[in-house]
Order: sequence, then structure tokens, then C-alpha cells
Amino acid sequence: MFDVGKIAIIGSGSWATAIAKIVIEHTHDIGWYFRKEDKIEEFKRKGHNPAYLTSVHFNLNEIFFSSDINEIVEEYDTLVFVTPSPYLKDLLKKLKKGLHSKLIVTAIKGIVPDEDLVCSEYFHKAYNVPYENLAVIGGPSHAEEVAMERLTYLTIGCSDVDKARSFSEKLASNYVKTKTSQDVIGIEYASVLKNVYAIAAGMCYGLKYGDNFQAVLMSNAMQEMNRFLNTINPIERAIIDSVYLGDQLVTGYSKFSRNHTFGAMIGKGYSVKAAQIEMEMVAEGYFGTKCMKEINRRLHVNMPILDAVYNILYERINPQTEIKLLTDSFR
Amino acid sequence: MFDVGKIAIIGSGSWATAIAKIVIEHTHDIGWYFRKEDKIEEFKRKGHNPAYLTSVHFNLNEIFFSSDINEIVEEYDTLVFVTPSPYLKDLLKKLKKGLHSKLIVTAIKGIVPDEDLVCSEYFHKAYNVPYENLAVIGGPSHAEEVAMERLTYLTIGCSDVDKARSFSEKLASNYVKTKTSQDVIGIEYASVLKNVYAIAAGMCYGLKYGDNFQAVLMSNAMQEMNRFLNTINPIERAIIDSVYLGDQLVTGYSKFSRNHTFGAMIGKGYSVKAAQIEMEMVAEGYFGTKCMKEINRRLHVNMPILDAVYNILYERINPQTEIKLLTDSFR
Repeated sequence: MFDVGKIAIIGSGSWATAIAKIVIEHTHDIGWYFRKEDKIEEFKRKGHNPAYLTSVHFNLNEIFFSSDINEIVEEYDTLVFVTPSPYLKDLLKKLKKGLHSKLIVTAIKGIVPDEDLVCSEYFHKAYNVPYENLAVIGGPSHAEEVAMERLTYLTIGCSDVDKARSFSEKLASNYVKTKTSQDVIGIEYASVLKNVYAIAAGMCYGLKYGDNFQAVLMSNAMQEMNRFLNTINPIERAIIDSVYLGDQLVTGYSKFSRNHTFGAMIGKGYSVKAAQIEMEMVAEGYFGTKCMKEINRRLHVNMPILDAVYNILYERINPQTEIKLLTDSFR
Repeated sequence: MFDVGKIAIIGSGSWATAIAKIVIEHTHDIGWYFRKEDKIEEFKRKGHNPAYLTSVHFNLNEIFFSSDINEIVEEYDTLVFVTPSPYLKDLLKKLKKGLHSKLIVTAIKGIVPDEDLVCSEYFHKAYNVPYENLAVIGGPSHAEEVAMERLTYLTIGCSDVDKARSFSEKLASNYVKTKTSQDVIGIEYASVLKNVYAIAAGMCYGLKYGDNFQAVLMSNAMQEMNRFLNTINPIERAIIDSVYLGDQLVTGYSKFSRNHTFGAMIGKGYSVKAAQIEMEMVAEGYFGTKCMKEINRRLHVNMPILDAVYNILYERINPQTEIKLLTDSFR
């Protein structure tokens, strides 16, 4: 069986922290890259991530921290990237050594800006990482629930089944169940699209559409996702698997998701700018919508929900008008 | 095009009232069967159903009320049955004339007790109604949202596409969109199973499983439903259509659904009896679980969620133990 070797986590957000917690239960030894040295110092003082999942305490003896990405890449065999997608390119520019011999696992759930590629495609094209060394972590997973050790199912995608299986064993525990898949790109695109559809769900909520309609929206979102995935990566897949449907549901039905909240504000009449200022952040799906729209310009998949969200966010079409039009396309 | 003729509603609950409202907008003339004459009198005095959707006012000139089922069957061509499924058999025993020349539409969403058949199967076997005269109304539809004229999508199933289309036109309005299907039996069984899965969702909620797990439960429920429908009625169907997935979601994610509430009480440790006394009613899914279990004894479909709910409700297996076992079967 493939040996995943030493594992490092690259990123310091809530999902990175959740994955660190999951991996460390097995390995009791991880590398962990933080961009900022002072955050590492604070982590060491407090025994937990100072900014995210602060209830999760770590044994500091089991973690090698570094703010030097080259040191991490040098020392570790499996690199789990969990940075925000807009920062990935800049981070990788600092690299002095190649990545092609590493197992690269992406848990980023976003598109690389200006490239219109999901992360595994980008690692392959820009860093020559062969597809059999590229893996993805997918599945319905609020990091907060992992912190509370509530039962969570993750899917590990890799075209090399042996590698997927080996890595998935490093995640399984009494509160994490894992399965494997070969649909790396499909899982990544699904996780980008779900944020677009969560914004759509928020918009409809803000516009006072009811639960009957939200269920129809989610059904049509799954149909749209299925069409897109069958075009971008035409392999056999069951779209009702938890890595696609489940991940969509946990995001689309969560009123606490940032994408849903953002959409709801737009639906209620806030401008994009005002919603972003009010939220003090930009929801990932805002960028995801633009990237997906660009990608689909060459693929021409029928994606009325994506189009509607794009028109509202980027073409300043009135949400009420646009969603009303969208409802006519639904079945 | 097929002429649906004069339409009557049979039943007096909230979904019957919602359908009456929808139909009457087109026809301005319906028959409406109530079991109790005094309820008809009260309806006439108040101008609305005295017990359900009381905010919906009707023009009494557009309704012919009767508590005599034979009078209704005599006078009307299309009969929409919306009684609770446990009462259907007794009601039909009163019939003096045949039903075979009528268009029989069922909106019952339940199984006929002791027969282990969905309603259209029962009308066919016990009353010789040919399948081409049997239709079903499905789709995600809280009656309360129809009352508020919130956008709702309904699917009309009939093996005779022309009849499905004709009847669906009597339902379409600015707040009801309709589509047609030929999967009558599949739609009926899906609407029974969704209540079983809503109980399961409630149980897991009561046992404090989180949102990550609920999304996995819903995904596995859709896989289980798909396996069952492909066995009982092996035709081409997209399980992510709103009539299957959407109907499941609106029920499974509604914390107000009676089945969800019932399941949650069981999950929290109430006995079945205590939960039913506390709720002052029996959730449909309680009967549905037993019927589906019986039906599956001859079909042998792999249905771990149904089995778990059955074991908890009827075999008094501890919910915590049984759901824990269930989680091992999930993917």
C-alpha cells in the first residue's frame, strides 16, 4: 500500500484547523504552515489556533510550525493545501523546489483567480504535478462540527485509488468516516458550484420565496451541477453521493453560511458593495460565480442558476426580475 | 386534448383545501366532499374551511358541497382523492357505482392499510380503474405555502401523457407551476418513503447528530429511495427531479413537519406511545414505515434507513444503538 509519509497542513483557517485535528489523531506528528509568524507564536502560547476553532486544543509537541513554505515542502511528503484560493498563487511563487514528487491534497474548494482552473488543475498545469499525485478532500463538512467531534463523512478523491485509500486512512476516526473516489476535478468543481447555489438560495430567501421553492431550487441546482460535471469530466458518477448532494445541502440549507447570508442581503435589496461592507468580508461564492461564468463561456452548459446569480452580482440586474425569470426555467 | 370534465375534491384537510383553492382559480366550479355535514355547514357560515388554512376564503357559489360520496361520484368526472390513507378503504366501501370511467387523481401520499399498496395500485386492483385513468399529484408542497400563494411546483403523474397534461393545466397559475411525468407509482412510493426518512432525520436531530451528518443522511436516503423505485417500477427516472428530491428535502429539512417532530421525540428518548400522546396525533410516517417494511419483505431491496426506523419504532431497539449501526452502512 502507498505510504503517504509525513503530512503537513498549509493554511491557518477553520477548515485547516479541523483537518489538522483529524490528521494529528492518527499521526501525532504534523507540519503546519502559517503565513504569519506572530500567529504561530500566539498559537504556541495559547495551545490552540488563536483565530479559529479556539476550543480545539493541540499538543504542541506533535506539531512542527513554520512560516517558511520551503521548509515545509522540504520536510514533508504529503502537503494538504487549505489556504483561501485567492492566496494560493502568491504562496506557490515562493517555492524554490518542485512539487511533482509530493502527494498534493487540496481542500481549498475554490478557483485559482485569473486562471479559471480548480486547484488540482492548476497544480498540474503550473507545477507539473502528475494527476496520480493530486488528491482532494470533499464532503459535507462544517469545520465547527468537526471541532465538536460530530460525525462527519469525507470523500478522498484521487485518480490513483491506492493513494486515495492510504490518505483516507489518515483521516478516519470514531467521528470521521471516509470513502474514496476517482473524480478529483468533479469534486472540486462541485464544491465551487455549491457556493454559487448557496448564494442563489440566500437570494430567494431574501426575496421571500418559501420552502417549497427552495426545495425546487436545490433540485434544479443538482441537475445543473450534474450537467456541468458531465461536461467538464465525463465519467460515471452518482450525483446523489454525499460528496456532491450532501455537500450542496449542508451549504444550501445552512442559514449561517456566509454565501447564504450574502445572497439573502442581495435578495433583500442591498447592493453588492453594501452587503460586503456590512459582512466585513467577501463570500467565496462571489468570486466563484465569476470564475464559473468564465469557464462556462467555452463549455456552453445550460446553467440558468449560475447565469442568474452572475447577472445579479456582476450585471446589476434587479434580483426580483432575474429570479422571476429563473423560476420559469425550472422543472 | 383530453377533457378532464367537472372536478371534485374528496377530503377536508389542509392539502385538500390547498388543491381546492388551486383548482377553483381555473374552473370556478368544483364539487367538494366532506365526511361530516356539520363541517360543511360551518364552512358555509364562515366562508372558509373551519379547521385548515382558515385564511383562504372561498366563493361559496363556486362550490357544490356534499357529504354523500355517491352524489359526488355521480356528478363529477375527475375525482381528486385527498383523504388520509387510513380512511380511504372505508370511504370507498360506501360507493354504489363504479369508478372505472372516471379520472382518479390521488394526492394522498400514503399506503392503504392492510393492503400494502399505494392508492393508485389499490384503485386499480380493487376498483378496476385502468392505469391510464389513474393520476397522482406530487412535488414539494407545504399546503400553508400554497395558501400564501408562494411559488410551488407540482408534478402530475399519469401513464396517459395527454391526461396528465390536461389535468396539469387545471392546476397551473401564477404561483403554481406544473410538469408531467409517467411515473405514477414511483411518485406515490417516493412520497411515502420521504416520511420515513423525515422520521429518521428527526431521530438523528434528537440524538444530536449535526448538519454534516443530516446532509449525508439525506444523500443516503435518496440512494435508498432510488434503489427501491428502480425495483418496484423499473423505468427511466431522474431521482434529482423536484418531485423526488425536492419533495424529500422539503419534508426532511422541515423542523415543523410532524414526522420530523415525532422522530426527534423518539431520538430524545420518548417512547412511541408517549410521543404520540404528547403530539396528540400519529405521524403518517409511523404507518408508512410498517407498510414499507412489509412491502420490502418480498422485494429485498437494501434499505438500511427504513430498517433502522422500523427497528426503533416497532422492535423497541434503542435509537442510539440502532442509528449508530446505521451510520456504519453510510457512504
